[in-house]
Amino acid sequence: MKKLIKAQPWLKKEEADILEQYLNPNQKPTAQELKSWKNQIQFIKPQNLKNLTTLGIQLVKANQNGHELKISEKDQEAFQKAETELGLIFNEAAYRFEDSHSTITSEQQSKSSFDPKLMQEVLDGSKIELIQKVKNTLTKPEFAYHQHEKIADQRAQVLEWCKLLAKEGYGSWAFPREFGGRADMEGYFTIMETLSYHDLSMVIKFGVQFGLWGMSIYFLGTEKHHQKYLKHIGTLELPGCFAMTETNHGSNVRGIETTATYNHQDKTFTIQTPHQNARKEYIGNAALHGQKATVFAKLIIDGEDYGVNSFVVPLRNKSGELHPGVEIEDCGPKMGLNGVDNGLIAFNKVVIPKEGMLDKFASVDEDGNFQSSISSDNKRFFTMLGTLVGGRIGIPRSGLSATKSGLTIAIRYGNKRRQFGPEGGEEVPILNYRMHQRRLMPLLAKSYALHFALKYLTNRFLTKSEDEGQEIEALAAGMKAYGTWFTTEALQECREACGGKAYLSENRIDALKNDTDVYTTFEGDNTVLMQLVAKSRLTEFKREMGDMNFITIFNYLSKQAKTSFTEKNPITVRSTDEKHLLDFEFHLNAFKYRERAIVASAGQRIKRLVDDGMDSFDAVNVAQHHLVNVGQSYIERKVLERFQLAVETTQNAACKKALQQLCQLYALHTLEQNKGWYLEQGYMEGVKTKAIRKMVNQLCWEIRQDAVALTDAFGIPDQLLAAPIAFND
Amino acid sequence: MKKLIKAQPWLKKEEADILEQYLNPNQKPTAQELKSWKNQIQFIKPQNLKNLTTLGIQLVKANQNGHELKISEKDQEAFQKAETELGLIFNEAAYRFEDSHSTITSEQQSKSSFDPKLMQEVLDGSKIELIQKVKNTLTKPEFAYHQHEKIADQRAQVLEWCKLLAKEGYGSWAFPREFGGRADMEGYFTIMETLSYHDLSMVIKFGVQFGLWGMSIYFLGTEKHHQKYLKHIGTLELPGCFAMTETNHGSNVRGIETTATYNHQDKTFTIQTPHQNARKEYIGNAALHGQKATVFAKLIIDGEDYGVNSFVVPLRNKSGELHPGVEIEDCGPKMGLNGVDNGLIAFNKVVIPKEGMLDKFASVDEDGNFQSSISSDNKRFFTMLGTLVGGRIGIPRSGLSATKSGLTIAIRYGNKRRQFGPEGGEEVPILNYRMHQRRLMPLLAKSYALHFALKYLTNRFLTKSEDEGQEIEALAAGMKAYGTWFTTEALQECREACGGKAYLSENRIDALKNDTDVYTTFEGDNTVLMQLVAKSRLTEFKREMGDMNFITIFNYLSKQAKTSFTEKNPITVRSTDEKHLLDFEFHLNAFKYRERAIVASAGQRIKRLVDDGMDSFDAVNVAQHHLVNVGQSYIERKVLERFQLAVETTQNAACKKALQQLCQLYALHTLEQNKGWYLEQGYMEGVKTKAIRKMVNQLCWEIRQDAVALTDAFGIPDQLLAAPIAFND
Repeated sequence: MKKLIKAQPWLKKEEADILEQYLNPNQKPTAQELKSWKNQIQFIKPQNLKNLTTLGIQLVKANQNGHELKISEKDQEAFQKAETELGLIFNEAAYRFEDSHSTITSEQQSKSSFDPKLMQEVLDGSKIELIQKVKNTLTKPEFAYHQHEKIADQRAQVLEWCKLLAKEGYGSWAFPREFGGRADMEGYFTIMETLSYHDLSMVIKFGVQFGLWGMSIYFLGTEKHHQKYLKHIGTLELPGCFAMTETNHGSNVRGIETTATYNHQDKTFTIQTPHQNARKEYIGNAALHGQKATVFAKLIIDGEDYGVNSFVVPLRNKSGELHPGVEIEDCGPKMGLNGVDNGLIAFNKVVIPKEGMLDKFASVDEDGNFQSSISSDNKRFFTMLGTLVGGRIGIPRSGLSATKSGLTIAIRYGNKRRQFGPEGGEEVPILNYRMHQRRLMPLLAKSYALHFALKYLTNRFLTKSEDEGQEIEALAAGMKAYGTWFTTEALQECREACGGKAYLSENRIDALKNDTDVYTTFEGDNTVLMQLVAKSRLTEFKREMGDMNFITIFNYLSKQAKTSFTEKNPITVRSTDEKHLLDFEFHLNAFKYRERAIVASAGQRIKRLVDDGMDSFDAVNVAQHHLVNVGQSYIERKVLERFQLAVETTQNAACKKALQQLCQLYALHTLEQNKGWYLEQGYMEGVKTKAIRKMVNQLCWEIRQDAVALTDAFGIPDQLLAAPIAFND
Repeated sequence: MKKLIKAQPWLKKEEADILEQYLNPNQKPTAQELKSWKNQIQFIKPQNLKNLTTLGIQLVKANQNGHELKISEKDQEAFQKAETELGLIFNEAAYRFEDSHSTITSEQQSKSSFDPKLMQEVLDGSKIELIQKVKNTLTKPEFAYHQHEKIADQRAQVLEWCKLLAKEGYGSWAFPREFGGRADMEGYFTIMETLSYHDLSMVIKFGVQFGLWGMSIYFLGTEKHHQKYLKHIGTLELPGCFAMTETNHGSNVRGIETTATYNHQDKTFTIQTPHQNARKEYIGNAALHGQKATVFAKLIIDGEDYGVNSFVVPLRNKSGELHPGVEIEDCGPKMGLNGVDNGLIAFNKVVIPKEGMLDKFASVDEDGNFQSSISSDNKRFFTMLGTLVGGRIGIPRSGLSATKSGLTIAIRYGNKRRQFGPEGGEEVPILNYRMHQRRLMPLLAKSYALHFALKYLTNRFLTKSEDEGQEIEALAAGMKAYGTWFTTEALQECREACGGKAYLSENRIDALKNDTDVYTTFEGDNTVLMQLVAKSRLTEFKREMGDMNFITIFNYLSKQAKTSFTEKNPITVRSTDEKHLLDFEFHLNAFKYRERAIVASAGQRIKRLVDDGMDSFDAVNVAQHHLVNVGQSYIERKVLERFQLAVETTQNAACKKALQQLCQLYALHTLEQNKGWYLEQGYMEGVKTKAIRKMVNQLCWEIRQDAVALTDAFGIPDQLLAAPIAFND
C-alpha cells in the first residue's frame, strides 16, 4: 500500500503522509471523516462497482485534474484479496455507496392474472348462495369478536352464537324437513366449512350439538327417537352430547368399559361407569350445557356381552341440575377451543327406559332377547361407526377454512411487510424473498388441492352405494389425517412467517393454530387413521393379487400404472425438460407408481415376516412406518387426481391457468418431498430431482405475484379475518 | 360350499340342512349363536391358526368322534380365497379366537441399561451443585403452579417469582462481585436453563430484567452506569427494559428510526419516536413494571447521523407513573408468555442528560463532538450487538429445557398408556409401537445432541479470544435457529403423541409449546439467522479459496473431508454393513462432506449468477434456500462433533454405551432426513439409504427400553413437571 502511494507522482507530500497515517490502526480516519468521504463518493455517482478497488479508481478519475493514477494489475489483485480478507463477499461493499438501487427482487409485486371473483365462483361451486348467506350472518354485529379473558365468558358467548345460528336454521340443515330441516347434508358441510372462518370454538360447539349429538340420534336411532328429539336438537332447545371416548379408550374405542345392563323386570337399562378411567372424557357440551347424551356402552343381557351399543341418557334438567347418578367434571383449560365446555362424565346406576336404546342396528325385544340384523358384535359396531363418518369430513373441511384464514393473513402481511433490501435501495416486501415464497406458496397450492379433494370426498360420501362403504370410510379417514396434519403444519408456518406479529392474539393466528391443533387427534388419531387406510389398501391389494408373488405383482403394477415402467427408461429418469416436468401425466404417473410400489412392498414385507413365523401383530408393527406411507401415498394420488380434474374442467381461461400452476406446484413439491424415495427406486436420477427443485422455486416465484389474489378468491370477509396485519394501515 | 357339505358322509341330514340354511344371507346365524360358537372354539384352544379354514378343520377334529373330514386341497384354497374376499388379511381372523396372546410387541418394556443418576451427572457436569440449588428453590411451596385466568394475575405472579429469584441472588449471578454478583456468566446460563423447567413467562421476565436490561448496562455502559444501576437491577429494585425492536424494524434492526438528538446548549439528548410504526414494540417489562429502558436510537449531532447507539431513558417512576413524553401501549394477549408484560413505547421529546448515553463504544465529548474507537457506524453497531450475543445462547438453552420437559411427559405417558393389542391379548403401551418410537426417539436423541452442543457454544462464548468473535456469533446464531426450530417441532410432536391428554392445560404441553413458540422469532428470526450463518461460512470459504474454480474447490473438498472422496467408491456408497452404518467416522465424514459440498456449490452458484450480470442482492435471493442449507449443514456437523466427543469422554461404561446409541440415532436420523441429497450426489445408493432407514427403526426399538431412564436423567423434579399424565395414577 505504501509502495503504491509512493508511485503516484501527483500526490503532494502532505497528502501522502495523511494516507500513510491512515494505514496505522491507531490513527485511522474518524467517524466524521468517513462520513464526509461517503458524501463525496455518493456525489460522483460511481458506476458498475465490482469491488472497492474499482471504486477507488473512479474516485481518483473524478478528482484527477489531469493527473493519472498509476496502479498495476498485480496491485489491483492485491487490493481485491485484501477486500476478501475483510470479509466482504461479492460486490456488496460497493453498493453501500449507491444512493438508489433497484433489483429484480425489489421490483416483484402483486398483480392478479385472473379475476378473484371468478376464481371464488370456481371454489364455491353450486353452494355459492348458501356460503354467501352464512357469511352474511357471520358479519352481523352480534358475531363481532370479543377477547374474553374468562373461560366462562367465552363459553357463554359461544353458546349465544350457536343459538343465533340455530335460529337461522343452520343447525337442522341436514335433518329431514319434517323435523324443521332442509334435508341437505351437503349444505350442512358447507355451513361448517364457512362458519370455520369465524371462531372455531363456535364451530366445534355447533358440530357437537348438530353433527355429533343430532346425527347420532338421526343415524343410530329410529322414528321414535327422531320424533322425540330431532326438532329440539335443531333449535338448540335440547343441548346434548356424544359420549363415546373414555379415559382409557380413545383410539381403541371398541374397548370401552361403560356398561348398559338390561333389567328384565322393569324393561330398563342401568348405565354404569365401572371405574374412574372408564369415565367418558373430553365430551363437548358436557361440562355445562348438555341435557342428554348419546352414550356408547357395552350391552349386557343376562351376563352376556353384546358389544358396544348406544343409548340416550339424561345428564341434567333444563335448570342445569344433574340427574341423580350422573357425575360431571370439567376438563378445565385447554390449549384451544376454550369456548367449548368439555367434561368428564361418570354414571352411577343411572336407569333409563328401554326406549332409550338407539335401536337402528340392534334392539332388545319385548322378551328381553337381543335382536340385530348384524350378528357379529364387531361388524355391528363398525357399521354404527360407519354412519358417523361425516365427522371425518367436517373436521378437515373446517381445518382447511382455518388454514385459508391463516394463509390469507400471512400472505397479505408478507406482501406489505418490508425488511432489508439492496444497499441504498428501499426495503423489499418479505414475500419477495425466495425463502418466504418457499414457506408459503406450496401451502397455498396444497390448500387449493385439498379444497377440491374434500369436495370430492363429500360428494362420494353423499352419493355412496352400499358396497362403496369401506372405500369411502378409508378415504374419509385418510383425508381427515392428511388434511388436519396439513392444517397444523400450515398454521405453524404462518405463525413463524409473520414473526412477532403472529404471536399477538389480535392477529388471530395463535387461535387458529391452537384451536385446530386437536383436529389431528379427534375423530380419530391421525396415525391410527392412516393405518386404517393402509389396512384397507392392503386388503384391496390382496383381493386383486390373490396369492402374492413377484411376477404377479410386477404384472399388476405394469397394468395399473401403465406408463410407469416404460418411464423408468434411462432417458426419462434423467429428463429435465421443462415441458415434461410440468406435465400432468408425468405427475400423476409418478404418484401412482409410488402408491402402488409402496402398497406392494408393504404387503410383501408383512407376508414375508409372517411366513417366517412372526406373529402378524408384530409383523404389522414392524412395518408400521411403512403402512403410514401406504395411506399417505394413496391419499396424495387421490388429491392430485381431483386437482387435475378440477383444472381441466375449469372454464375461465385465466382461472384455469392459475389453477394449473398451483396444481403443478402441488405435484412437484410433493415429489420433491419424496425425492429420497424416487431416487432410491431409480424412478428418477439426481439431475431430475435437482431440476424439480429448481422448478418448484420457479413456480413459487411466479405464483407469488398471484398470491394475494389467490387468497382473495377464498372470499373470507374482512370482518372475520379481523387480523390488523392483514390490512393496510 | 354346498358341494362340500354333501361330501361329508358323517353329517346327518338335519345338520346339513342347518348348514345350508346359514349360507342364506337372510337366515344367517344370530348373535347368540355366534357367541356360543365362539365359546366352543375357545374351549378347544386351537393351535397355529393360519386362517379360518385351518380353524374349521381343527374344530371338526376336536368334535369328530371318529368321523373323518373330507376336504380337498382345492376346496381349502377356495375357502382361503373366500376369506380374502371377506377382507381379512393374514391370520388376524384366527386370533380372535385365542384367549390370550402374547407378542414381541406386547413384551417390550422399560428397563434401564444404566444408572440415571450417573447419567444426570454426565449431563450436569461441573454445574451440578448450582443446578440442584436452583431446583431446591423452584420446588419450594412459593413456586407452586397456579392457573391464573386473568393476565393481570399471571403477570403479578411472575413478578413475584422474579423477586424471589432475585432475593436468592440469581439475578446478579453474572454481575461483578462489587455489584452484588458472582461474576459467573456460565452460572447465569445454567440458572436460565434450570429455571426453564418451570414457568417460561418467569424465565423470560427474568431474562429481560437481568439478561437484556442488566447486560446492556454492563456491556454497553461504563463505570458510571455500572455504579449507578447494576446493583439495583440485580435486586430487581430497578425493573427495566431492552428497547431495540421497532414495529417497522425487527430483523433489520439497523434500520430503526427512533432518534436521539444532541442538544449542545444544555448537553442533553432528546429521544423521539418519529411515527407510530417506529415505536419500540414487543418490549418486555414495558407494559407494567419497567422504570427505565436501554433505548436504541440513531444519534444525531448537528443534523449528522452517527448510527444506532444506546441510551438509558426513564419510563415511569417508582409509583408507576409514566415519565412525561413517554407513551406506552400494552401488547395485549399473546399466544404464550402471557406472564410477561410486553408493550409498545413511544417517546415524544423525552430529554435525558448526556450521561444517559451508554458510552462503551461511542460518546459525545464535552465540545459536542462524536467520539468512537470504531469509526464505521455499521461496524460499531455490530460490535455492540456482538456483546449481546448471550441472548442467543440463553434462548436455545431455555428451549431445550422445555423440550426435555415435554419429552419426559410424552415418553412417560407413552410408556404407561395402553391402546390396542394383539387379539385376545392385553393392550400394549403405545411406546411399543414403532411409529410412536419413530416419533419420539429421534427427538430424545437430538435433545441429548443439543445438550452437549449448547454447552460447547457456551464455553466457546465465555472463553473467546478477540479474533474468534465472528465465528462465535455465527455459531450462536446458527445454534439458536437450529435449537429453537427443534423445540417447536419436538413440542408439537409431543402434543400429538399424547393425543387429547396433551390438549388439556393441566398436562403443561400446551404451555410449553405456546410459550416457546416465539423462540424461533426472538433474538433474531431463525431464517434470517441461518442466512447470517451462511454468509459467515461463505466468507470463510472464500477466504480459504481465494479465486474460486472447480479444481481448487475439488482439492479443497478432498483435503478437508479426506476420506469422503475415497468413500465415494462403488463399494462404500452401497455398503449396508451394520458396523459401517453405526461407525462414528462414517457419520462425521458424511456430515462434513455435505457441509462442504453445499457451501462450495452455494458459493459457485452465486458467483456464476453475479458473473452473468445479476445484481448480487438478486443472486443471494435466488440462492436463499440453498443458503439456509449452508447454515443448517454447518450446525449439524458441529452438533455431531460435540456429541461424539461427549460420548468418547464419558467414563461410565453403561452411560457411554447409552449415549453412543443416541449419538448413532441422531446421526443416522439426520442422514435419513437428508437422504435425497446424498442420493442426488451419488454419495450413497438406494440400498444404503434403505439400510439406514432400517437401522433407525432398530435403534428406536432398542432405545425405547432406556427411554424412561433417559428422561429421568434430565433430572426434572416432579413438582416442576407437574403433568398428571407423567405419573402413575
